[in-house]
Amino acid sequence: MSSSSSTPAKPRLRVGIAGLGRLGKRHAEALAFGNRHCQLVSACSPVPSELDWAREQLGVGRCHASFDTFLDDPELDAVVLVTPTSLHADQTMAALRAGKHVFVEKPLALNVEDCERVQAVAAEHPNQVAMVGFVRRFDPSYRRAAQRIEAGELGRPFLVRSQTCDQNDPEGFFVRFAPTSGGIFMDCSVHDIDLARWLLGRPKALRAFATGTIALHPGLAECQDVDNGLAIVEFEGGARAVFYASRTLPHGHETTTEVIGTAGTLQVGFGAHADRLELRSAAGVSHAVLPDFHARFEAAFQQEMAEFVAACRGERQLSLTLADATEATRIGLAITRSLRSGMPEAV
Amino acid sequence: MSSSSSTPAKPRLRVGIAGLGRLGKRHAEALAFGNRHCQLVSACSPVPSELDWAREQLGVGRCHASFDTFLDDPELDAVVLVTPTSLHADQTMAALRAGKHVFVEKPLALNVEDCERVQAVAAEHPNQVAMVGFVRRFDPSYRRAAQRIEAGELGRPFLVRSQTCDQNDPEGFFVRFAPTSGGIFMDCSVHDIDLARWLLGRPKALRAFATGTIALHPGLAECQDVDNGLAIVEFEGGARAVFYASRTLPHGHETTTEVIGTAGTLQVGFGAHADRLELRSAAGVSHAVLPDFHARFEAAFQQEMAEFVAACRGERQLSLTLADATEATRIGLAITRSLRSGMPEAV
Amino acid sequence: MSSSSSTPAKPRLRVGIAGLGRLGKRHAEALAFGNRHCQLVSACSPVPSELDWAREQLGVGRCHASFDTFLDDPELDAVVLVTPTSLHADQTMAALRAGKHVFVEKPLALNVEDCERVQAVAAEHPNQVAMVGFVRRFDPSYRRAAQRIEAGELGRPFLVRSQTCDQNDPEGFFVRFAPTSGGIFMDCSVHDIDLARWLLGRPKALRAFATGTIALHPGLAECQDVDNGLAIVEFEGGARAVFYASRTLPHGHETTTEVIGTAGTLQVGFGAHADRLELRSAAGVSHAVLPDFHARFEAAFQQEMAEFVAACRGERQLSLTLADATEATRIGLAITRSLRSGMPEAV
Amino acid sequence: MSSSSSTPAKPRLRVGIAGLGRLGKRHAEALAFGNRHCQLVSACSPVPSELDWAREQLGVGRCHASFDTFLDDPELDAVVLVTPTSLHADQTMAALRAGKHVFVEKPLALNVEDCERVQAVAAEHPNQVAMVGFVRRFDPSYRRAAQRIEAGELGRPFLVRSQTCDQNDPEGFFVRFAPTSGGIFMDCSVHDIDLARWLLGRPKALRAFATGTIALHPGLAECQDVDNGLAIVEFEGGARAVFYASRTLPHGHETTTEVIGTAGTLQVGFGAHADRLELRSAAGVSHAVLPDFHARFEAAFQQEMAEFVAACRGERQLSLTLADATEATRIGLAITRSLRSGMPEAV
Repeated sequence: MSSSSSTPAKPRLRVGIAGLGRLGKRHAEALAFGNRHCQLVSACSPVPSELDWAREQLGVGRCHASFDTFLDDPELDAVVLVTPTSLHADQTMAALRAGKHVFVEKPLALNVEDCERVQAVAAEHPNQVAMVGFVRRFDPSYRRAAQRIEAGELGRPFLVRSQTCDQNDPEGFFVRFAPTSGGIFMDCSVHDIDLARWLLGRPKALRAFATGTIALHPGLAECQDVDNGLAIVEFEGGARAVFYASRTLPHGHETTTEVIGTAGTLQVGFGAHADRLELRSAAGVSHAVLPDFHARFEAAFQQEMAEFVAACRGERQLSLTLADATEATRIGLAITRSLRSGMPEAV
Repeated sequence: MSSSSSTPAKPRLRVGIAGLGRLGKRHAEALAFGNRHCQLVSACSPVPSELDWAREQLGVGRCHASFDTFLDDPELDAVVLVTPTSLHADQTMAALRAGKHVFVEKPLALNVEDCERVQAVAAEHPNQVAMVGFVRRFDPSYRRAAQRIEAGELGRPFLVRSQTCDQNDPEGFFVRFAPTSGGIFMDCSVHDIDLARWLLGRPKALRAFATGTIALHPGLAECQDVDNGLAIVEFEGGARAVFYASRTLPHGHETTTEVIGTAGTLQVGFGAHADRLELRSAAGVSHAVLPDFHARFEAAFQQEMAEFVAACRGERQLSLTLADATEATRIGLAITRSLRSGMPEAV
Repeated sequence: MSSSSSTPAKPRLRVGIAGLGRLGKRHAEALAFGNRHCQLVSACSPVPSELDWAREQLGVGRCHASFDTFLDDPELDAVVLVTPTSLHADQTMAALRAGKHVFVEKPLALNVEDCERVQAVAAEHPNQVAMVGFVRRFDPSYRRAAQRIEAGELGRPFLVRSQTCDQNDPEGFFVRFAPTSGGIFMDCSVHDIDLARWLLGRPKALRAFATGTIALHPGLAECQDVDNGLAIVEFEGGARAVFYASRTLPHGHETTTEVIGTAGTLQVGFGAHADRLELRSAAGVSHAVLPDFHARFEAAFQQEMAEFVAACRGERQLSLTLADATEATRIGLAITRSLRSGMPEAV
Repeated sequence: MSSSSSTPAKPRLRVGIAGLGRLGKRHAEALAFGNRHCQLVSACSPVPSELDWAREQLGVGRCHASFDTFLDDPELDAVVLVTPTSLHADQTMAALRAGKHVFVEKPLALNVEDCERVQAVAAEHPNQVAMVGFVRRFDPSYRRAAQRIEAGELGRPFLVRSQTCDQNDPEGFFVRFAPTSGGIFMDCSVHDIDLARWLLGRPKALRAFATGTIALHPGLAECQDVDNGLAIVEFEGGARAVFYASRTLPHGHETTTEVIGTAGTLQVGFGAHADRLELRSAAGVSHAVLPDFHARFEAAFQQEMAEFVAACRGERQLSLTLADATEATRIGLAITRSLRSGMPEAV
């Protein structure tokens, strides 16, 4: 699209990826084939078959089992970290200190202190990009929503209602993942929290209240988690947000956001149409729904990598900051505390 | 609604109904209970059980087997004719000559000559109302469409696409009815034809072309009828209309109209929602569809009777004229001829 | 519709109405003209012009300024009370003691004690109908929702999200009304509360948490009220409800309810279509939205009166009880306390 | 997506592009950057600035002003022809004879004889791919429609209604283009014609009838063209199709198709949503519409190139044949003749 304005003389960004699970593979492909301004030169994973895949399918030349040797590569400009959450903060700091630009998947960390340590290191490397993967900001519909709000179409926005609802997985994979996920709000709602802050103009969060229920997956009770959670956040100045997260939708993935202002309301993603088809049959009028988060945000994942590469090449300023990631974590943690205490918690 | 502006002093209109089939019963109930400005005083039917129903359920005092004695009632102001189509023209003329206001179900007749004879008689009784039941004109949505078009929201309207599509009746009741119905276009599309003329500003129809197919009911072939028909009408000045009529929808009744203008397009009835419910389940997102014409136009049937009563009482001028009914018949016949000849036919 | 199954021999119910404001007039017209099984025989209002209206427009014979003389009428079977909320409880008890069936507008009272006093009196008159006007239960779409839930289409319902959102009134009429309305939750959300209990199978409410904001009407601060309110209710057994009430929608009235179950989700009222029209113009694709609660629930208001009359005549059992009204008040009050305290409140 | 199943050893397809107008540039970018299995090695254009663009922006090494020298390149496996329609047939034959795989934009030619000559040449080169750009077949929604029809969800499909409607261009660019475009049906409806044949199972077309009107662009009259055209096609066995093409939509591009069968109906593209946003404001509820064909079929254009490349590499069989293109031209020409003669024309 924007090819005509770029100058081909500039060398391509040399990127390495760490972590080649489902989402890591997706990012790796986008870097290897979807973007003319970068090349995927190295990969890091403790899983040999994942490195084989990178070598054979993507033609990646340098494959590392060790994160240290991965970073210790002078011909590497930037790293993309799709590793377990518990490693995010330390790996981000190490990469920044090694002189690399960093893209790290959300959440930045499961505690505020780690987020702030990363922010401090990033501040010492002001010429390097440090970006957290709040992918929904890169979705065309969310982006246009932000533009229309900024243009004043809603008057003053004062309420966000946002949800991340996954199709029920009868196997309950996420139940096994629950002990380390940080709970439903840290895992799912952290996106909605970031969006709410962004679309409301980054007001300061004051208090959070949460509740929830276990509809289908009793195994979650062990980790004090739920499969359907509700939360309200109060912001300074009167703005409010309501979040809903569910693991048990019967029909597909339905991630939606509503921004309510004094002059209008914007709804993003309602209907969750899988495609542009509608069927009429004896069962009525129906349409299929998106199966999962990846199907919904396919374009956004591409755009996210493109903007990271553009930022590293100095061609674009990111609106998404590490401070945003810290705030999302801070609010998500207060919500999670409230779910457990049953009382409103200060953010 | 408008009660506060009416004057109660005026006597109620005394109405009689002839024909108490499904639609006749509906009109009879509307006249007996739905309108404070009229009373249903008499009924006429060759079927004794229908008269019993009128007497017992509606409290109708005067019940007649003979249409002549029905008309020969000095305490009757108006008649509503819901009799077989073949009787419409003669009964309308007889009632007008007996000094009654007349409401007659569509179509006025299955040939233009009969329509014109009725028009001539009506012209001799200018103080009596003579109204044909093009009920869709009284539907709130169609009415607002007409108002918005008149207000210029579409610029100059030049194309109408309109359909009357019924849910398939596996019993094929209408197949037995086919020999006397006038065919699918006279039976179903006559409404769409009237709407197209109304919404396009009554242009003169020049030519018609039609085709069709039998999808499910081979018995129609005997009467040269089809269960799915398509027609195009060319009007003077460049306006065009496309009609679709079907007897075989699997999911319900879907009657829709689209008016396309130089500045906008209005769609009426798309989706055919049975109610304000939407279900999400493993089968996707779905809504139920209206079962039939009566469910779709329930409010319009009420309004139609109310406007007939108001016109008889001199409180309202009707925009719908006998000449409109004649033109709808004329166009419907040209379409039907084209279906049979395979060639465009002059209207 | 159901006329064919009723027996005309039974005498018509003799009904009187007290209170002839906007909603009172609507009920009065429905009783005078919309129902063949009752007659509106008397009216009561302190406002002479309202009684004039009843006499002249509806032909009501007995008009009273005093509620006592209104009740003291042996030829009166039932009363419909559309009086100020503060009078509801006492008038209901007086009418029950006078031997009348009673329909009273919601809310039954602004405190639980009054509700329980009415329940006690009603228990002493088991052969009289006592019904509170939770009109949304009589809406065709809500009714079908309840039927489909009962039929198991959602599996086990465990979450209701429901809202009552009015178009902004720049005059802020409701601000003047705020001191006596009981606040936004008692005035608007009480319907949603009743629906949630009904659709979730009447679980016991345990706790409520609420927050809110003033977006456009600062005058509400005096009465500790808000123009946008959010509430969460926790029920025994794990079910949850979220309510949203707003006075400031820019585009119309949007009253919606979503019921989420283990096998499906039902949405009621989303889109708030004013009619079956959709416009395409340079501004995109658009539809008009319902202007207010009355336009949305026009059919429900008719049905509500019809069911009250049928219940008084012994032809129908009501599913809606005084105990339901008491519970709605109890929950609404807990929500209102939470709005003021900022803490969860026990119901 | 499917990268994991491909074998990287196979050499990349070497492709050249001829024609670098708007659509040509789009294809060129897709070949240069969007597909890992091909490389864009040469370009051909009579316009020097277009070749400059290819050289500088895409890094294309071999740039030709002459089509002959472009073809005379032994290191070229395949060509993509995005040249004026009048050159399509001859260039396709020349490229086939030069041993190249060929992708050529639709329509293949504006007369049936040329199409058949190309078919004959292609038949002499059975190991080379020859593909015409009916891009809508590669759209995910159309593709799923075809799959669902094949799976029997509609029963027996017997009617297609399909439209290609462009947003009005007040400049009327297409008016200047009209003398060589073949008219509105050859230019726009040829896609709908191909889709109808595909989705109905390739029945033989018998007759066509067309009409049209000039709503906004009187200059079209000179070439006997219209800016709004309607056509009906009759197929052997009873299937029917109705096409609508417009140049004058006020709100955007709305390309839709409806397939009606004995057991169901599929609608593709209705609503033409530009994104997943819906606005509520004083103007009602609205969404933006796609601006043009390219925005609607962005993914399909990518997929089309990917499938061409895969077919050339022997990895995929194309369902779309040259015979399909010939039939689409044959039907389009009959429709165009009917528009001019006013009579049904044999196909």
